[in-house]
Amino acid sequence: MARLVHKFGGSSVGDIRKMRRCASRVAGVIADGNEVAVVVSAMGDTTDELIDLAGQVTSEPDRRELDALMATGEQVSAALFAMCLRELGLRGRSFTGAQAGIETDSRYGRARIKAIDGTRLEEALAGGLVPVVAGFQGRAEEGGVATLGRGGSDTTAVALGAALQVARHGGSCEIFTDVDGVFTADPRHVPDAVRLPRISYGEMLELASLGAGVMHARAVVFGERHGVPIHVRHSQHHGVGTMIVKESPEMEDNVVVGCALKTDLGRVTLRKLPATTGIQASLFDRLATGAVVVDDIIQTEFGDAASVAFTVEHGDLGAVKALANDVIGQWGQGEVCIDVGLAKVSVVGVGMRSHAGVASRMFRALSDVNIRIHNITTSEIKISCIIDRSEAERALRTVHEAFGLSELGNMAGIASGGNPSVQPSGTTG
Amino acid sequence: MARLVHKFGGSSVGDIRKMRRCASRVAGVIADGNEVAVVVSAMGDTTDELIDLAGQVTSEPDRRELDALMATGEQVSAALFAMCLRELGLRGRSFTGAQAGIETDSRYGRARIKAIDGTRLEEALAGGLVPVVAGFQGRAEEGGVATLGRGGSDTTAVALGAALQVARHGGSCEIFTDVDGVFTADPRHVPDAVRLPRISYGEMLELASLGAGVMHARAVVFGERHGVPIHVRHSQHHGVGTMIVKESPEMEDNVVVGCALKTDLGRVTLRKLPATTGIQASLFDRLATGAVVVDDIIQTEFGDAASVAFTVEHGDLGAVKALANDVIGQWGQGEVCIDVGLAKVSVVGVGMRSHAGVASRMFRALSDVNIRIHNITTSEIKISCIIDRSEAERALRTVHEAFGLSELGNMAGIASGGNPSVQPSGTTG
Repeated sequence: MARLVHKFGGSSVGDIRKMRRCASRVAGVIADGNEVAVVVSAMGDTTDELIDLAGQVTSEPDRRELDALMATGEQVSAALFAMCLRELGLRGRSFTGAQAGIETDSRYGRARIKAIDGTRLEEALAGGLVPVVAGFQGRAEEGGVATLGRGGSDTTAVALGAALQVARHGGSCEIFTDVDGVFTADPRHVPDAVRLPRISYGEMLELASLGAGVMHARAVVFGERHGVPIHVRHSQHHGVGTMIVKESPEMEDNVVVGCALKTDLGRVTLRKLPATTGIQASLFDRLATGAVVVDDIIQTEFGDAASVAFTVEHGDLGAVKALANDVIGQWGQGEVCIDVGLAKVSVVGVGMRSHAGVASRMFRALSDVNIRIHNITTSEIKISCIIDRSEAERALRTVHEAFGLSELGNMAGIASGGNPSVQPSGTTG
Repeated sequence: MARLVHKFGGSSVGDIRKMRRCASRVAGVIADGNEVAVVVSAMGDTTDELIDLAGQVTSEPDRRELDALMATGEQVSAALFAMCLRELGLRGRSFTGAQAGIETDSRYGRARIKAIDGTRLEEALAGGLVPVVAGFQGRAEEGGVATLGRGGSDTTAVALGAALQVARHGGSCEIFTDVDGVFTADPRHVPDAVRLPRISYGEMLELASLGAGVMHARAVVFGERHGVPIHVRHSQHHGVGTMIVKESPEMEDNVVVGCALKTDLGRVTLRKLPATTGIQASLFDRLATGAVVVDDIIQTEFGDAASVAFTVEHGDLGAVKALANDVIGQWGQGEVCIDVGLAKVSVVGVGMRSHAGVASRMFRALSDVNIRIHNITTSEIKISCIIDRSEAERALRTVHEAFGLSELGNMAGIASGGNPSVQPSGTTG
């Protein structure tokens, strides 16, 4: 008997029919002798509808009130899901995040979980109940209901997996979503992309940061820190999905496990800047204050005049240009140059730490098909190249092939699933 | 400076535009130097929509889960209302029932308030916040969210009025609704019906039980028990409404303050019953188990064979007939007789306790216009006559005139309002 957390996302519980199907799945797992705690997101577009209501009141809703409003979406799902379980003869019992013992700080809209008192859920499980917890929320120190921000329900699920010690009870945190698992690349762009039976937390984290929407980076970090095995699976199919686990030595055999694409990027270059210290800090402070998400930062120096470049999404370019000109005006020196129509192709894998020549293999592959590289950034387990947007999908396929990623579906560890249908991995295009 | 509770019903906060208007009203009262705590119902049809979702899952939803589901409706209203207040420069702060310290028993769906810990609301008021409490709900002993059943938000408002000691702070509990106050009769049937500037708890209670939907009886009882003055007012107009207050000696000057009509009643008569004790108990136990709401009970005895009659709404007649035949079958004696097409006209007033001849004046008035009386029931401050449905509206007008009720709008105590528009009093037709 294992103890599991099952998390169902908004599209998986988008209507009562789908919700029933998810409940049946839970019932089947319990019938096999396991304990299950369920975490649910808000149904379909509920959160957007609530935000729209708030938008009718004000363009800048109070964060605490917006959280109180949004948290009801998951509470509705939890109550309905508990009813679905009861229809199947199980003793479903809904819990708000606060009732489930999830305590957060008071940073409304992006609260962090500070502690979980699992007593009530443990009691519920011991009493034969099937807890259904409203995701995405907790009780703030100050007493209100706080939401956890993007990917919040994944974080709730992984955090409950830690509190309920699913690993010690032979189980995992199962994230049911609308894809079959984590793929070596987005199958919409790379027809021979394959599902990875498993991936390390670190690799998943890099892929998530590169826009692979299967799981939110934050939940992955939480899982790694607390040693919660995370299992990403399709909510309506019965494939085996992808296990996100601790890195093990044999994982380094695979130099690269996935590649990803981010498109519609713009590059902002500030040139001929005064070569004084603190110039980067003041620039990126301003961008952060303006809520601009900076993608990669690349700095170079030529002689006396410094230069700093960074990429942002196209949608942010207008705001960035104004801010950058403003900053240069204050410094009294420098010029702003903006390039649009860029994309970023990246490869990720813990194996590249121990294998030389990964970067050169990537650059060679792109060069062989005449794709020009504008910028390069790297982390310990990731290499990214900024290229033209028009070459993006071709670059992704090229890199996927260069590292032989379509072979990874056969890798040892977990048998490949019985479901042959290929689903988008969520790597955004 | 007075302290007030303002309660806005579902139609008063049916959309954001209406909600803004209610918030402006609160802002005006606060600008005049008063303290206000707000209680809100769910927006418009929200509760029905939530019940419909549950109905898609099961025809018999678990009561605890249905409560968890329904309570979100009021929570949405509270958060949005708090945002509306913030748009007006006030520090609105939403509270769920549980957060506001409302503790109930665990009878989900029809919970009773056991205690209110007003600490958090007192702290909020002291800190310059304007609390906006989700009505209709509290924290059940067992830990879940329980709803208070029909009229629950009124009860929340009056209970908070007691906890916050509005009377001691020179204020009252203001129930904003879609009528101008309590009328001497339903203006849809009696054109010269007038708004009562004030009415006693007891009279309001009788009128509420007679189907005058302005306020739920339960909230009135709570108000009387805890000495909370209740002020019924229109949410969109600025009339002075009706104060529901403790009975005072001069109130007895008005023999009758209102009359009401209940239509579409059926009468069930059980005749030739065995004259044994316990027969009524077993009959009405069965009806209660069958969730039939019995209106009035009239029992007579002729010789050895007992007879018992009672009125129910037409919609319940089918269920009642089956139950009554079942009971008679068990007794082995008696017969069931059903009359349909009846109505009940009633007059209410604390003054009738000290004035003789009220009943005879009512019977005389009906007799003078050839309306036949089938049954009569009385309470200390109420007289009801069962008549033919076809005579109902005529009977109401006759009684209204016989007691000179159209003069009561001029009665002393509270000056008559500036709003001449006549609104239905909610006395159901």
